[in-house]
Amino acid sequence: LKVALLGYGTIGSGVFELIEKNNKIINENYGHNVEIVKILVNRLKKYKNDANFNLFTDQFEEIKSSKPDIIIETIGGILPAYDYITYFLSKGIPVITANKDLIAERGSELIILAKDNNTIISYEASVGGGIPILKPLQECLAGNEITSISAVINGTTNYILTQMYENNETYDKALENAQAMGFAESDPTSDVEGFDAIRKLAILSSIGYKKNIKWSDLPTQGISNITDLDIVYAKTENLKIKLMAYSQNIDGTVYGAVRPVFITLNSKYAQINNEYNAVILEGDSVGELMFTGKGAGKYPTASAILGDLIDIIQNKKRYPEGLYEEVSNLQHYYPNPSHYVVRFKVDEIDSLTSKLFNIFYEHGIKISRMQDQSVVYVQVFSENEKKLIDTLESIREEITCDYSHYIIYEK
Amino acid sequence: LKVALLGYGTIGSGVFELIEKNNKIINENYGHNVEIVKILVNRLKKYKNDANFNLFTDQFEEIKSSKPDIIIETIGGILPAYDYITYFLSKGIPVITANKDLIAERGSELIILAKDNNTIISYEASVGGGIPILKPLQECLAGNEITSISAVINGTTNYILTQMYENNETYDKALENAQAMGFAESDPTSDVEGFDAIRKLAILSSIGYKKNIKWSDLPTQGISNITDLDIVYAKTENLKIKLMAYSQNIDGTVYGAVRPVFITLNSKYAQINNEYNAVILEGDSVGELMFTGKGAGKYPTASAILGDLIDIIQNKKRYPEGLYEEVSNLQHYYPNPSHYVVRFKVDEIDSLTSKLFNIFYEHGIKISRMQDQSVVYVQVFSENEKKLIDTLESIREEITCDYSHYIIYEK
Repeated sequence: LKVALLGYGTIGSGVFELIEKNNKIINENYGHNVEIVKILVNRLKKYKNDANFNLFTDQFEEIKSSKPDIIIETIGGILPAYDYITYFLSKGIPVITANKDLIAERGSELIILAKDNNTIISYEASVGGGIPILKPLQECLAGNEITSISAVINGTTNYILTQMYENNETYDKALENAQAMGFAESDPTSDVEGFDAIRKLAILSSIGYKKNIKWSDLPTQGISNITDLDIVYAKTENLKIKLMAYSQNIDGTVYGAVRPVFITLNSKYAQINNEYNAVILEGDSVGELMFTGKGAGKYPTASAILGDLIDIIQNKKRYPEGLYEEVSNLQHYYPNPSHYVVRFKVDEIDSLTSKLFNIFYEHGIKISRMQDQSVVYVQVFSENEKKLIDTLESIREEITCDYSHYIIYEK
Repeated sequence: LKVALLGYGTIGSGVFELIEKNNKIINENYGHNVEIVKILVNRLKKYKNDANFNLFTDQFEEIKSSKPDIIIETIGGILPAYDYITYFLSKGIPVITANKDLIAERGSELIILAKDNNTIISYEASVGGGIPILKPLQECLAGNEITSISAVINGTTNYILTQMYENNETYDKALENAQAMGFAESDPTSDVEGFDAIRKLAILSSIGYKKNIKWSDLPTQGISNITDLDIVYAKTENLKIKLMAYSQNIDGTVYGAVRPVFITLNSKYAQINNEYNAVILEGDSVGELMFTGKGAGKYPTASAILGDLIDIIQNKKRYPEGLYEEVSNLQHYYPNPSHYVVRFKVDEIDSLTSKLFNIFYEHGIKISRMQDQSVVYVQVFSENEKKLIDTLESIREEITCDYSHYIIYEK
């Protein structure tokens, strides 16, 4: 079987190595010899001393003329990946991709194209790196109604938040470390602003709830405005901060969002640190299942791609999956009564406390202790988010302040 | 599609309910109507007031003549399940089973029979209840060499040990509670002596290491000799006790065992309590993956069976899997240097301490604190198990005592 590899960055080179390493085992167990026949790269010169230089090309035409049986796309981003993938799918050639941007953005279209051409597009690696999650969700849990999906699904932000918490790093320094470790890209926007996580949540939620859920319709808040002081506050309150992706099926409508949350130390997420990811799926029959592992990185991601490859070799996935046409109605507030942390940034701390207490009191919202610095933290007990937001708006009418509110997640 | 259900106990009735509940969704998503046409039970009279009484039979002949397309077996045990399953496999009819005893005992034979008749036997539910584990291991991780498998995989023993630890229950009382909760069977031998866990470990390890591994070749130790005092000792040392299934791939040979271990409180297993199960798979590419959920129970197990059913409906599993003919060479000692707890039961405590210290010292084994009661506990630091066992044998030559040694598991 001839495989063409599009892209040879971290993931692509990992795939190349793993295929070389496992070729014999794949042949023994599945009766097919897998051979990488061409590798598409941007800068061909970079590889001129590579032992496999003859495999590299910067011409898509050469990929075409290598007549591949299977395409593995590891370029990332929408273009030109989209053009390459649609070319091969329309020829009936199966495509494996780790490209969450593309799947979240144009997944339905690609799945339809694959179906129309009697082939498939596989994308296990697009969510959770090496953690098997899409296939278990789609296949093993097919007899369940999925009721909620929660996840710490972006390794970069989890690394940054862990470093801030454990090593008292500043946000900037922690981001710099993440970049040095290869967890964060030079432009970290997609990670730190939550776009990577929301795309993965949209993919998971579409499959889980069997609905068409667009990532761009879901509220997304990243970690770039989490401060050192927030971490100090979290510690004093026995909380941690995580960037959480959460969605819930509410009688056929869906709430989904990515936002920083304060978690309690006995939350299942409290042990998920640094580059680790975790996904908790809740099904009506199976109850709660948790999947944990490295959510990114060269070999974990390549491992997921190899899983897809071996499925295709065995001709197991003959029908494209994950196409749900019915667009879901969305809910806009967190659907469960919850405790919250509200952070107020104000000019004059002194006069604030009593005013704040009064307004919460007037709205019948129970709150607890606060902390005096340039910032005031308030904990709100067991309220609906809508009511809290209304109250916060009333506060802003009376007090000049900036505020953010965060769920306290206990599960 | 006509389904015949063999057995209508906890699991069987769960499967019946889930199929009834999900029939419409299965039809919408996979284009097949699934109908349960016959249910084989032992005591027909028991169901005479059941609304579906006409589906029940105590005659296997009636199951045959119902001409099922798919068999779901939930009877458990070797006979008569084996006879029924072989009958249908030899007719080319696919079988889904939750029967870990049968799969661990005669799995290879059934897989060959299925293969020879161009059909399949599916058994995701046999390990980990509702936790998707066999499929992720076999398919998603196919591009990995699996290096180790650890698991808390028997809900009954985990429930008993948790109750002893958290609620200071005696072993007998905790077992009684487990039976009252429906976690333990009236004859709990298979659970408490570790046979259930070792069968599951053998199934996982065979798939993981692609070798034929017989459960009966693996050392198995249950929890029936864990005492209240052991629990007290564990607490004072910040340890917990778990029944752990552990196997490791050592250059093509395999160590595998079920045994009680002391785990540290920051072990990943420390949070896996009561009926919860967890499996940690380590692959050379993917690193460590952890899967957690309810490992048994009516609906979780039925959920796994439905996953298999929907695979069969989609005709996805056309080749039987999990047949590994090469018998593995086994290692007999825990393959990693480890800390241990050694429990000595002696007649005369007073004279013992210095003798014990001396013998450990002579063997160059570092130990730490002990505890005086009718029992003496010794902690041994970072030794090979073989050396520890040799030393313990020397001790028995000099001191009349009973002893057991337990790994301290830290991961």
